[in-house]
Amino acid sequence: MSGQPNHPALLIPGPIEFDDAVLQSMSHYSESHVGAPFVATFGETLSMLRKLFQTTDPSSQPFVISGSGTLGWDLVAANLAEPGDEVLVLHTGYFADSFSDCFETYGVKATQLKAAIGSRPQLSEIEKALKEKNYKLLTVTHVDTSTGVLSELKALSELVHRVSPDTLLIVDGVCSVGSEEIEFDKWQLDGVITASQKGIGCPAGLSISMYSGRAIKAFQSRKTPPGSYFASFKNWMPIMQNYEAKKPSYFATPSPQLVHALHTSLTQILSKPLSERFAAHREASQKVKKAVTKLGLKQLASDPADQANGMTAIYLPENIQAPELLPNLLKKGVIFAGGLHKEIAAKYIRVGHMGVSVTDPKRGDVERAIKALQSGLSDAGYQKA
Amino acid sequence: MSGQPNHPALLIPGPIEFDDAVLQSMSHYSESHVGAPFVATFGETLSMLRKLFQTTDPSSQPFVISGSGTLGWDLVAANLAEPGDEVLVLHTGYFADSFSDCFETYGVKATQLKAAIGSRPQLSEIEKALKEKNYKLLTVTHVDTSTGVLSELKALSELVHRVSPDTLLIVDGVCSVGSEEIEFDKWQLDGVITASQKGIGCPAGLSISMYSGRAIKAFQSRKTPPGSYFASFKNWMPIMQNYEAKKPSYFATPSPQLVHALHTSLTQILSKPLSERFAAHREASQKVKKAVTKLGLKQLASDPADQANGMTAIYLPENIQAPELLPNLLKKGVIFAGGLHKEIAAKYIRVGHMGVSVTDPKRGDVERAIKALQSGLSDAGYQKA
Repeated sequence: MSGQPNHPALLIPGPIEFDDAVLQSMSHYSESHVGAPFVATFGETLSMLRKLFQTTDPSSQPFVISGSGTLGWDLVAANLAEPGDEVLVLHTGYFADSFSDCFETYGVKATQLKAAIGSRPQLSEIEKALKEKNYKLLTVTHVDTSTGVLSELKALSELVHRVSPDTLLIVDGVCSVGSEEIEFDKWQLDGVITASQKGIGCPAGLSISMYSGRAIKAFQSRKTPPGSYFASFKNWMPIMQNYEAKKPSYFATPSPQLVHALHTSLTQILSKPLSERFAAHREASQKVKKAVTKLGLKQLASDPADQANGMTAIYLPENIQAPELLPNLLKKGVIFAGGLHKEIAAKYIRVGHMGVSVTDPKRGDVERAIKALQSGLSDAGYQKA
Repeated sequence: MSGQPNHPALLIPGPIEFDDAVLQSMSHYSESHVGAPFVATFGETLSMLRKLFQTTDPSSQPFVISGSGTLGWDLVAANLAEPGDEVLVLHTGYFADSFSDCFETYGVKATQLKAAIGSRPQLSEIEKALKEKNYKLLTVTHVDTSTGVLSELKALSELVHRVSPDTLLIVDGVCSVGSEEIEFDKWQLDGVITASQKGIGCPAGLSISMYSGRAIKAFQSRKTPPGSYFASFKNWMPIMQNYEAKKPSYFATPSPQLVHALHTSLTQILSKPLSERFAAHREASQKVKKAVTKLGLKQLASDPADQANGMTAIYLPENIQAPELLPNLLKKGVIFAGGLHKEIAAKYIRVGHMGVSVTDPKRGDVERAIKALQSGLSDAGYQKA
């Protein structure tokens, strides 16, 4: 039984559908941000994030800050790089352009390594680029929300550590944390930034990130102060460490309600082995992708090895445009997203399959999505060639 | 009847107690941030903010961004001043130091005009300072949460416009918007930054601000790009304008749940004349302040003209320390805040009286606060001399 009123199933690549208990936590009565009960909740939340990211290294540092996924870019650009530093941005779509803009804002020189839409830079190209210049950071979008392209982190990390061991490896995991496997310690990642409203299954409003001891050391050996005030590690690090040690402290007022919801969501996620969660996402994803193929449609990510498990980006048949199809799907009770890549925005749609829509099969969200897509295309006159 | 479980009344100067309907809006089912229903809610919220700030000038620009009150400082420092600019920061406590730090982060030179704790810089001193240098901005903390000192905006604005007409007047209204009268147009203010969790009565997690057409023009005539990416007017202004015109657009994902709660809270606030709201705050404040005087205690803000209407900062009797008194008050069902000024932190307490605790007399929060203070001091052995 759901405590939520009847509403169309939100199956976009974030925000996703939320569990009742998570939404109920959003209504938590007001608490002091420095009172013992909330300090304990925040501290436990930070400790649970370590488990979600699979890091046991005590030098890793989690951050939870009021903001959005975008704020994570400022955290990286204003703290882990200094003006004049060079960074290599792997480009898989829309978001690499924005991350590069963010670096440039802080005087950091961003070089993009581009790939065709639906693809990703190959390891050999990355190796070549890393050998040409000294990069302070390399950034990769784990799942590109604009294309559904999944990047492989383990092999990338091995490459970076072999070819350019001083380069920090930063992962934009906004559309991957909680839905794609990430082993922070084992894969030797230096930073993963994300947001609350996708695979983590908590309403939007929180910037969530994890940094390695190596990244924190790089921050501490800066020659210049951080380039941002609100996004400054200097201001936030003692606060996060105090909360996790269950000690009150203050830099800016956190959102107790959002942190309660995140606490509830992480408690649910960690109540089962993470491997089961990732398997459920892979399985639902395969269901959607098989149905897409059966309909004779193609994904933006053409190589199965490059396909995300939490979302699918689908090219529409030639005569059907996203702005016509999506309102009809809404009538059928599901909300999908249009394209984000300007030049082809009307030509493709994006379907999210993350969180409770995947882990709670009683909801039937994935089946509803597939059925709606089939009948929506049929309504629009599409027949498989 | 309250939908909230029994809990101690949170009577600190923010976060405050929230209305049931506002908290219920926090549990809103998931919506797309670019779907028509949420775009309408966000657009209406921005339009309602114009009413709360009492601005009808179409060139005024409201912003609602996931973040905290602190993010407002970055919005001002990174957009309305440029590296090398001079700004005058009126100092009434803790927050002016931090706002100055924020300016310095963006290369802006902050000069503080200080006053003794519990007081504020006088108009004659401000006039003298304005004549000595060309300041791009002057900032004032409307209510200083650390001391309960209220600054007078109308006379200050007249002075600034007379003596230094090119200087933009920026108000830190984090602890004043919604509880203190602010007439944005009439008083010719150029920027007011605030947060959701105090006088506005919506859970923490939103940075809320309003800028004049003059401030926006100053931004548009910058010679350098904004100093922040997440806090950039360039990135957010088209988004705010689109939402208010009910058109979907995207820079960073907003928090639909928090925006719904803000929508509910603003609808409640605007359902009655604002003058009634401010009168209710003045009345409750007088009740608390009279009780404090009757107990033989003094406020940090010694001059009644300098006393905020949404909070009271009270010096404790000589033998009683805040860390001993506050836990006993919690047992009596009320949460007050300790001091924020490091040198005297243990010697004073702060009581918030804003929002539903003041406008909904059925709650009895103000009376409960006064009674708890009386009996808490008596338990600690205090007798009026």
